[in-house]
Amino acid sequence: MWDFSTDAEFQEKLDWVSAFVHAEIEPLDLLFPAHDAPYDRDSAVFREVVRPLQEQVKARGLWAAHLPPSLGGMGMGQVQLGLLNEILGRCSWAPMVFGTQAPDSGNAEILAHYATDEQRKEFLEPLLEGRIVSCFAMTEPTGGADPGGFTCTAVREGDEWVINGEKWFSSNARWASFFIVMVITEPENAPYQRHSMLIVPADTPGITIVRNVGIAGWDQPGEGGHAYIRYQDVRVPLENLLGDRGGAFVVAQTRLGGGRIHHAMRTVGMARRALEMMLERAVSRHTQGEILAKKQLVQEMVADSWLELEQFRLLVLQTAWKIDKYHDTHRVRGDIAAVKIAMPTVLKNIASRALQVHGSLGSRTKCRS
Amino acid sequence: MWDFSTDAEFQEKLDWVSAFVHAEIEPLDLLFPAHDAPYDRDSAVFREVVRPLQEQVKARGLWAAHLPPSLGGMGMGQVQLGLLNEILGRCSWAPMVFGTQAPDSGNAEILAHYATDEQRKEFLEPLLEGRIVSCFAMTEPTGGADPGGFTCTAVREGDEWVINGEKWFSSNARWASFFIVMVITEPENAPYQRHSMLIVPADTPGITIVRNVGIAGWDQPGEGGHAYIRYQDVRVPLENLLGDRGGAFVVAQTRLGGGRIHHAMRTVGMARRALEMMLERAVSRHTQGEILAKKQLVQEMVADSWLELEQFRLLVLQTAWKIDKYHDTHRVRGDIAAVKIAMPTVLKNIASRALQVHGSLGSRTKCRS
Amino acid sequence: MWDFSTDAEFQEKLDWVSAFVHAEIEPLDLLFPAHDAPYDRDSAVFREVVRPLQEQVKARGLWAAHLPPSLGGMGMGQVQLGLLNEILGRCSWAPMVFGTQAPDSGNAEILAHYATDEQRKEFLEPLLEGRIVSCFAMTEPTGGADPGGFTCTAVREGDEWVINGEKWFSSNARWASFFIVMVITEPENAPYQRHSMLIVPADTPGITIVRNVGIAGWDQPGEGGHAYIRYQDVRVPLENLLGDRGGAFVVAQTRLGGGRIHHAMRTVGMARRALEMMLERAVSRHTQGEILAKKQLVQEMVADSWLELEQFRLLVLQTAWKIDKYHDTHRVRGDIAAVKIAMPTVLKNIASRALQVHGSLGSRTKCRS
Amino acid sequence: MWDFSTDAEFQEKLDWVSAFVHAEIEPLDLLFPAHDAPYDRDSAVFREVVRPLQEQVKARGLWAAHLPPSLGGMGMGQVQLGLLNEILGRCSWAPMVFGTQAPDSGNAEILAHYATDEQRKEFLEPLLEGRIVSCFAMTEPTGGADPGGFTCTAVREGDEWVINGEKWFSSNARWASFFIVMVITEPENAPYQRHSMLIVPADTPGITIVRNVGIAGWDQPGEGGHAYIRYQDVRVPLENLLGDRGGAFVVAQTRLGGGRIHHAMRTVGMARRALEMMLERAVSRHTQGEILAKKQLVQEMVADSWLELEQFRLLVLQTAWKIDKYHDTHRVRGDIAAVKIAMPTVLKNIASRALQVHGSLGSRTKCRS
Repeated sequence: MWDFSTDAEFQEKLDWVSAFVHAEIEPLDLLFPAHDAPYDRDSAVFREVVRPLQEQVKARGLWAAHLPPSLGGMGMGQVQLGLLNEILGRCSWAPMVFGTQAPDSGNAEILAHYATDEQRKEFLEPLLEGRIVSCFAMTEPTGGADPGGFTCTAVREGDEWVINGEKWFSSNARWASFFIVMVITEPENAPYQRHSMLIVPADTPGITIVRNVGIAGWDQPGEGGHAYIRYQDVRVPLENLLGDRGGAFVVAQTRLGGGRIHHAMRTVGMARRALEMMLERAVSRHTQGEILAKKQLVQEMVADSWLELEQFRLLVLQTAWKIDKYHDTHRVRGDIAAVKIAMPTVLKNIASRALQVHGSLGSRTKCRS
Repeated sequence: MWDFSTDAEFQEKLDWVSAFVHAEIEPLDLLFPAHDAPYDRDSAVFREVVRPLQEQVKARGLWAAHLPPSLGGMGMGQVQLGLLNEILGRCSWAPMVFGTQAPDSGNAEILAHYATDEQRKEFLEPLLEGRIVSCFAMTEPTGGADPGGFTCTAVREGDEWVINGEKWFSSNARWASFFIVMVITEPENAPYQRHSMLIVPADTPGITIVRNVGIAGWDQPGEGGHAYIRYQDVRVPLENLLGDRGGAFVVAQTRLGGGRIHHAMRTVGMARRALEMMLERAVSRHTQGEILAKKQLVQEMVADSWLELEQFRLLVLQTAWKIDKYHDTHRVRGDIAAVKIAMPTVLKNIASRALQVHGSLGSRTKCRS
Repeated sequence: MWDFSTDAEFQEKLDWVSAFVHAEIEPLDLLFPAHDAPYDRDSAVFREVVRPLQEQVKARGLWAAHLPPSLGGMGMGQVQLGLLNEILGRCSWAPMVFGTQAPDSGNAEILAHYATDEQRKEFLEPLLEGRIVSCFAMTEPTGGADPGGFTCTAVREGDEWVINGEKWFSSNARWASFFIVMVITEPENAPYQRHSMLIVPADTPGITIVRNVGIAGWDQPGEGGHAYIRYQDVRVPLENLLGDRGGAFVVAQTRLGGGRIHHAMRTVGMARRALEMMLERAVSRHTQGEILAKKQLVQEMVADSWLELEQFRLLVLQTAWKIDKYHDTHRVRGDIAAVKIAMPTVLKNIASRALQVHGSLGSRTKCRS
Repeated sequence: MWDFSTDAEFQEKLDWVSAFVHAEIEPLDLLFPAHDAPYDRDSAVFREVVRPLQEQVKARGLWAAHLPPSLGGMGMGQVQLGLLNEILGRCSWAPMVFGTQAPDSGNAEILAHYATDEQRKEFLEPLLEGRIVSCFAMTEPTGGADPGGFTCTAVREGDEWVINGEKWFSSNARWASFFIVMVITEPENAPYQRHSMLIVPADTPGITIVRNVGIAGWDQPGEGGHAYIRYQDVRVPLENLLGDRGGAFVVAQTRLGGGRIHHAMRTVGMARRALEMMLERAVSRHTQGEILAKKQLVQEMVADSWLELEQFRLLVLQTAWKIDKYHDTHRVRGDIAAVKIAMPTVLKNIASRALQVHGSLGSRTKCRS
């Protein structure tokens, strides 16, 4: 029967997370503006700032909430994960502190499902412990995210796979210890049975990072976190196959279903933070002799933002609830797709309005001073 | 704990309503295009078509669901009422058949709360039985819906109130047996304590319907259902006061809180019907050698409509759930206001797209032939 | 060299038209709300009101300005016609008073180009004099405006064409003396060489008006001006062919090129009138203790409307200027298409805002009283 | 009389500019991504790349086109300046090469109007020759661009002005040789007569750049071109007053009127370049087995972009034409304001669509490799 509330026990956990994120993690954005530092496991920031916070999360039993208990996670359903991610989305460091940082979180999920014992030991365990960083390499420069256009292949030679091709937008490649690379191994199959997943250690010869692509308005030229990578005669042993030959799409879907819900709820958290900043600004800034909050156009921005955010949040939670209920992301794929297409518009709208209300302060003002 | 489903027992009722509306009421829109006929209690349409359907609803125990059991209603909460109204909103005759036709439904609510025994006997009982029609007269020609601009007054003379002024957009006035008129009786009070409610029988001398205002695109000139009324020395006995002197706003709020939820859920039903028509058209009409459903712009219209409707529906249901939980519409007034402002945009967007997809068939093609 | 002004001599003519329309024609909308009366050439309204006004226009030498001087018109270019139509668009009766009423104006254009001497005498002359009304029948119920989907045919039998099929949205059919009907006569040709134009007198046996389709929000059910017509074994003599066999598209294009500019400039006039009404309302209506003009959201509506209208007007005038310059609508077809798709959005946006600013007064309030 | 064309002689000049910008300047964006280098007059880039190009422009007689001939400019009207700036807007280095780089261009205008002979010699001459860079300091951190909220003051002490306060968003401050600072000198006057302009050499003691504020998505943190500056007991001689005491607004308006037209036309150029990139991408990228150009949603993006750009361009040119005609920016201030508010939306819409059509390639991919 219709219920729009969280049970008291879980709400208590969320309350702790909320207070912890606000007090301990949100300040890091200002203290350490170079947002890629923490990905470097050898950096002082990671060792001295991130690690101790991770220990607190583990001590609370909230580490890697998306994983099953057998892997040290909490075995939460999608609704609970959603509510947790809503809080983590408020600040860019929180997912790392809580062990739910993409793409590591999704990579851990598929390793948990498909990895052999040896693969688990070599790749999954250090990943779960947060000792290493991983990368998921599917998108290609000319094929985009459309598998029909992919051209990166792996050919079997003796007891090795030999990979040739290019991948694009490989998140965190520059800090990763291994890549999960989607390659054509069965070119004669139907399009969605052509690809396999291979685990490729980052130090395998033949891998070149052509460019570290950034996000407009976020990264320095050439210093972004989304690599353009070339694979030339890159050789990995046959046993580095993850899942079945030709089964790459089955593997990939494992990480995408729930992942979109988490992304969406982090987006809700991010948009809410933008809305809160808009509200703070509206009640503190005067112009033309009047506080911004008195101006109808500002009131409209606030009202529209609340409306878009609240409605979108309910759609995401309903979708999460359906996944929990049917245990079948395929059945809920229409809802998941709806969440995916609505998400960027909601964030763009609310963040743009927040920038507007801040005027020139909405420009990049973050600095160390 | 979060739940987005209806309990099985109530769902069964909704299923019956859904089938009944579809089979028995939806066809009436086409059969009897003059949509005001049923308001006339003496019309053949009302006696021969509406009455028998109303009897079926009563026999099922679904009559006037918004009223407390003591008044012959079902005592449903707002969530259940919302889900019921979602179905009734699909077609313009359904609310009348189910005894939830505005403004009679809201008028019955306030009579139930504030009427004296004599008033209940004279006005509420025949209204509940659907034997008469009523009118709520608040809006004014120059003051709109802003009470600060109202000027219609009632002055006490002996044992009578003497009303002078004008009201605007008085729905169903032309068929009503009595009006509930909001008048200034305590001009010296603060703005929101100035008005009282008076029950005015429609045949009281001094009432003139200046014009029956219509809705653009709906009614004939001069034949609309929203009257512009002039009150000149209209006299009613003192005992026709409804509620306290100066208490008109308290009375009015009684009908507006939940009313907005019902309106919103009927809007959801109406928009869903428009979306269904859009879908039917998209899969049946070819142009430029291709079915509409294959065209990206049509697909976008469908996707956007689904998204807007689904999100809005969840917002309305969450608001209904909050009213049920807190039993306090004041506490939930922010949510209710959000529903109110989101509603017309959702309907306008979806209905406009449905018209677009129908092309010139989206024009008024209904006829008797 | 860039110039955004009208030469003084023509401006003087426009000034007379503007004053005449305002003083003599705009009031007719309120005086004679039944907007189809003037189409009936036998009606008192036409004889006593429209005719005398037409005589004044003719006396001024402004009658049928779109026609070449040889046909009694003014031989204006598209820019001048545009500026004239901008004024005529302000009120629904003006085009009829100025002899530029669609579809008669376009029908006269194609008759002037393609009619034989006999056809000119029988159909064009009384049309130019405004003694009869005509109809252009191209659109079909299932094919819409996509010629690839048309099915209405004419088969030659002896010295007659025998027409069978249906047409939809045939404007003014109910008042027309003759129809120009587009029919398939060469089914074996390529799609755009399949059709011919036939002139069909309205009283030819076999023509049935299935329904007079209306525009939503404008006409009564069954009383609209856009007919759904059935042609069953309708026989016309061979000499009623207009233009070449298989040449219907060449004929049709003659009327569509410039016609879209006139429509667009009338739309500019209509939108400007809506904007003026918005402004009048904004400076005369108070709500919540403040004049509407002081509210930022109303100011935004005014500013957005001005911006959309001014920019669109310049686009239309530039397109008209290109047609005048190149004497080749084909070369300018991209611009003409741009005008066509921008037009409805501009009008819809501005008219909607005007309705909003009028509140419930934006409903249909026109009446005879 | 309406004319939408450029005269042949001036068009020839534009053609040369267009070819020169395309061949010589557009490539610089890719070759020298650090877009602030050229502001540094001592940099190799400025000396070796920019200077020689500037000489070519001067040799063609196209240097500093916005200035009167007496100052070495071309004395163009606003329409011609607009058409020139439309080309310069295509690439970020072009204004510098043509001597029309803001804020230097506007600063030169006001120095030309108000400077004493000594000021001209010391500040205007090297500025016109492009030997130094200048800064205009009006906006304040808390007052924004609303003069009513400004607090930076200058108090007279002996033969010096002593400045105290803060300025915000002072473009190019880090490279400037002098600042034109707007300060309160007559606090007892009416708001718009309170301020004076002072010329402040950049090396005057007491000036601190608190932070070099960047534009989100453009600059590095702390490395932007819009400085936050603190003035503490900054002393300049009395003769550094520019214009009259209390006359700062008169001075400021001199640079803002036409400046908005130039900005707008550069924006048109920038948006057109984005549209061209969108088109190139649409005809070269396949996804889901189809070229982007075949997809209706991409076609819609192209059509909407063309429409918005073409209409906006005409509005700007009409406004420029009105300024040229009336020689009175005050009379045309409504049009100028319309241009100002429409401009960012046009650019945002077209640039966003171009980014969308490029997918992840729309991210910042520029690099030296």
